[in-house]
Amino acid sequence: MTESATDNYRTLSVDSVVDYLRSVESVASLLGDNVDDWSVNEIGDGNLNLVFLVQGPNGSVIAKQALPYLRVRGEGWPLPLSRAFFEYEALTREEKRAEGMTPQVLHFDRDMALTVMEFLSPHIILRKGLVRGIQFPRLANDLGLFLARTLFRGSDFSMNAADKRADVALFAGNDGLCAVTEARVFTEPYFDAELNRWTSPQLDEVVAGIRSDSMLKVAVHEMKTLFMSKSQSLLHGDLHSGSVMVTEDDTRVIDPEFAFYGPMGFDVGALLGNYLLAYIAQSGQATGDDDRIAYSNWILKMAEETWTTFENEFRNLWHTERTGELFPSHIFGDDDADATERALTNYLKDVLEDSIGFAAAKMMRRVIGAAHVEDLESIADPDRRAECEKRVLSLARSLILNRKELSGASDVIALTREIGARD
Amino acid sequence: MTESATDNYRTLSVDSVVDYLRSVESVASLLGDNVDDWSVNEIGDGNLNLVFLVQGPNGSVIAKQALPYLRVRGEGWPLPLSRAFFEYEALTREEKRAEGMTPQVLHFDRDMALTVMEFLSPHIILRKGLVRGIQFPRLANDLGLFLARTLFRGSDFSMNAADKRADVALFAGNDGLCAVTEARVFTEPYFDAELNRWTSPQLDEVVAGIRSDSMLKVAVHEMKTLFMSKSQSLLHGDLHSGSVMVTEDDTRVIDPEFAFYGPMGFDVGALLGNYLLAYIAQSGQATGDDDRIAYSNWILKMAEETWTTFENEFRNLWHTERTGELFPSHIFGDDDADATERALTNYLKDVLEDSIGFAAAKMMRRVIGAAHVEDLESIADPDRRAECEKRVLSLARSLILNRKELSGASDVIALTREIGARD
Repeated sequence: MTESATDNYRTLSVDSVVDYLRSVESVASLLGDNVDDWSVNEIGDGNLNLVFLVQGPNGSVIAKQALPYLRVRGEGWPLPLSRAFFEYEALTREEKRAEGMTPQVLHFDRDMALTVMEFLSPHIILRKGLVRGIQFPRLANDLGLFLARTLFRGSDFSMNAADKRADVALFAGNDGLCAVTEARVFTEPYFDAELNRWTSPQLDEVVAGIRSDSMLKVAVHEMKTLFMSKSQSLLHGDLHSGSVMVTEDDTRVIDPEFAFYGPMGFDVGALLGNYLLAYIAQSGQATGDDDRIAYSNWILKMAEETWTTFENEFRNLWHTERTGELFPSHIFGDDDADATERALTNYLKDVLEDSIGFAAAKMMRRVIGAAHVEDLESIADPDRRAECEKRVLSLARSLILNRKELSGASDVIALTREIGARD
Repeated sequence: MTESATDNYRTLSVDSVVDYLRSVESVASLLGDNVDDWSVNEIGDGNLNLVFLVQGPNGSVIAKQALPYLRVRGEGWPLPLSRAFFEYEALTREEKRAEGMTPQVLHFDRDMALTVMEFLSPHIILRKGLVRGIQFPRLANDLGLFLARTLFRGSDFSMNAADKRADVALFAGNDGLCAVTEARVFTEPYFDAELNRWTSPQLDEVVAGIRSDSMLKVAVHEMKTLFMSKSQSLLHGDLHSGSVMVTEDDTRVIDPEFAFYGPMGFDVGALLGNYLLAYIAQSGQATGDDDRIAYSNWILKMAEETWTTFENEFRNLWHTERTGELFPSHIFGDDDADATERALTNYLKDVLEDSIGFAAAKMMRRVIGAAHVEDLESIADPDRRAECEKRVLSLARSLILNRKELSGASDVIALTREIGARD
């Protein structure tokens, strides 16, 4: 189901991207027709793609091109170009399901694995905002709505069964990216995989402990089992705080190249895990001038509000938009309202349980796996960083082992304050 | 994802099937080369297909051809011919995964939606054997092994993730047949659908009660939710006692045209539900000469043994054949054995819970939905039949509402003796 570079694919450069875009009329006119006035910068900081910022006198665009290999690992780690197609397909569905919360797509070229889209400005990556201690008033509400709308409307509660089954089959083709998640999130951190790294020697003992922690490893593999066989809805698939761009009054979700039909909790948990990680990292960001305590509390408030908004909007959509084949109105009438409400509550309880488990898996891999995050990496002093990282691992362990017992977002927050708080 | 009749499809008759098969060398030589010595009978009693028994001097074959519409409903109910392809694909996988338990396929023609296969003789359909009161010594063991081997080896415990994802996508194309199950099993019995029927007036009140039984309807839709989004393994998809052919010393599973990747409990539950239904129907089969009490007990013993064999073989395969990406041996060693064993037990507990829920849904639809079964239909006296049917409905309700609390097959049998036994 994967594909490799075809004859029509060639890697763009800051020069050739101009030649390419000048022939795409809608993009050229948006930038300004005189190509000599365009400037191009390659701004990608990721692993997988080239990202060109193309600025003209009239406007700016992003041109994102998939590379046929994992950038950081060189050409020995091929990654299917088809992920650009799946990202594009996911973006079009997200735009329909959660209007205005993704960048507008201006042009897509499947052969070139290239998507040209709206340049978001003055947006910054949420993760960078969290490291800098910036509050975003709309964040929790916007992300809660995004989660509820994309996840509900991509599920059997909303979609026609035939359409959903065809879409599941389509996105099953994004196998190469699912394999990356399966390896990087659920597997490699728990054995001696080549690219694992951690703050050493401070965490050496903790890592050894994790590798012999049977209960923890089993719990992670229970989450992996769900990742591979619970096709509840179309997921973003990589919804960490690096996939969110924010301003004071706008929130956009970018980069759904890992999209596939999976468990709703994987998207919810990705956000939740990144909030909790950012919360714990605050003690490492603290300075004499700014203890970051108020900001830490704000992050936890956002985590709880994101869930609450998700839950409320999901309930709202269940009551107003149940157009799929589950719990149809010709079978479930007003007299059944109490029972269907309990079914909805049980469903959301299950999503929460999954979210907690996936959040924990995602937190741990950022400390002991291959791909780390700025929240922790920006803490220069290794002892101080390691102290935060130990709290991340300890909280993650409690979360995943107690995921069935935690009955609401407030329980998660309480546990986080208990285990994740600085001394 | 469905397809309709192509230019290369034509419905066969007892005459044209001979013309067709004479040109298939392997089949012709098996039957005997002189076509004049062949005899053909159309023996299909199903809804969906033509089934020709072609007998020659040297041997016999079955030629099964899909019809482009639901036979009993006429040409107004189209059904995709592609199901013959999915049946063929499922048969090849089942033969590999549970060797010797399916009919041998001799020839497949996708355009003609035609499969030519081994004629099983002196096998009879299990359902007919259960109605006649015949014991089959190998039945429970064979079916338990079939379930464990096909379900384990079609899951992420065994398959390579990429292969499984591609196969999930392939079988998502069998949408038309999944839609039949969704409608016929989970939906139509619970509202005033056109083709529902039941023993009337005896069951009128009971049916009205079911339609206003909120808890029951919710439970059935919880099972439907799992049917649509829990892609654990490749299922047979229609594993009732009419899909099993038996002799004293052989057991074969036929007709996997409903195959798709779904919850393991759907196959296990189909068999379980049909055992329980057959058990309850025995009181209707009883005569002055034969009270069928011993046979009733034998059926319950088979139900329990089928589960026990399934569970034991599933555990065995888990320990000896875990070649997939879940719980790999480079992460889980001997020190983790207790924890992984608990994970396996929890997984099987979940399969049991699903099996009980699906068994119940399948039992109910045979009494109040469109498609009934000989076990009950053969009870000529409507009062006597209705008495059995009420017990079927009552047991099914208890099973589905208590599916989380029943902790083993023996609990299911005990509940069946309590609620399902004749007065």
